[in-house]
Amino acid sequence: MDDCVFCQIIQRKMPASIVYEDSKVMAFLSHRPVNEGHTLVVPKKHYVDIYEAPEEEVAYLFTIVKKLTHAVRDAIGTSAIRIVQNNSKNAGQVVFHLHVHIIPMKEGNHIWRENDFRSTELLEKDAREIRQKIK
Amino acid sequence: MDDCVFCQIIQRKMPASIVYEDSKVMAFLSHRPVNEGHTLVVPKKHYVDIYEAPEEEVAYLFTIVKKLTHAVRDAIGTSAIRIVQNNSKNAGQVVFHLHVHIIPMKEGNHIWRENDFRSTELLEKDAREIRQKIK
Repeated sequence: MDDCVFCQIIQRKMPASIVYEDSKVMAFLSHRPVNEGHTLVVPKKHYVDIYEAPEEEVAYLFTIVKKLTHAVRDAIGTSAIRIVQNNSKNAGQVVFHLHVHIIPMKEGNHIWRENDFRSTELLEKDAREIRQKIK
Repeated sequence: MDDCVFCQIIQRKMPASIVYEDSKVMAFLSHRPVNEGHTLVVPKKHYVDIYEAPEEEVAYLFTIVKKLTHAVRDAIGTSAIRIVQNNSKNAGQVVFHLHVHIIPMKEGNHIWRENDFRSTELLEKDAREIRQKIK
């Protein structure tokens, strides 16, 4: 999918702070994180949403989400983590390539506020810290 | 877990509008739904959160979540569905038995507002409609 920003990240045509990669799945940091450590986990194959992806790909995607949720917790230092997967515009989907958000939360946080961009330097630092915690 | 409301539902000690059940997983409607069709999917075994549940249980849980997301879409008539799994109080977890929300969304919806209770009659109607769409 030439015009899909996540496909471009997967193909290394666009930069991202990559946290995890295997033959089927990639994870990288959101550049407009709700909080530090806000990670996006995507299948490498282009599926628009959960409806399009086969069952076994969804199962595998969420085993990686679990693995990375532990790593984000250990890197960011909070077990308060919201896992979110939006389908369709009215559910808040913005990029139409299936993705799962791993979002560390703080007390009183509102998840769907507009976020500030985070600098590439800070994203790279976050990614490094999370990568070190992957077991 | 004697004091866990979801364990009580699983053991049929408390009523709920059940959408799906197999040997490992149960799904029932939230009695304070964000919108009609708001479904909760839980492992029958008591795990507090995603950290406690083994990888293979998480994978299986989300294959059922996918299956039920299709059914909720077909029953409610919207593909705008948000899948949410909260860990710890600061991430909005209220019942400390691992659960996944399947939440049909409408334009302009805010997910974390206080919801009204939905009558048992309407919940039973919703559950019946979703059950009929499970493939």
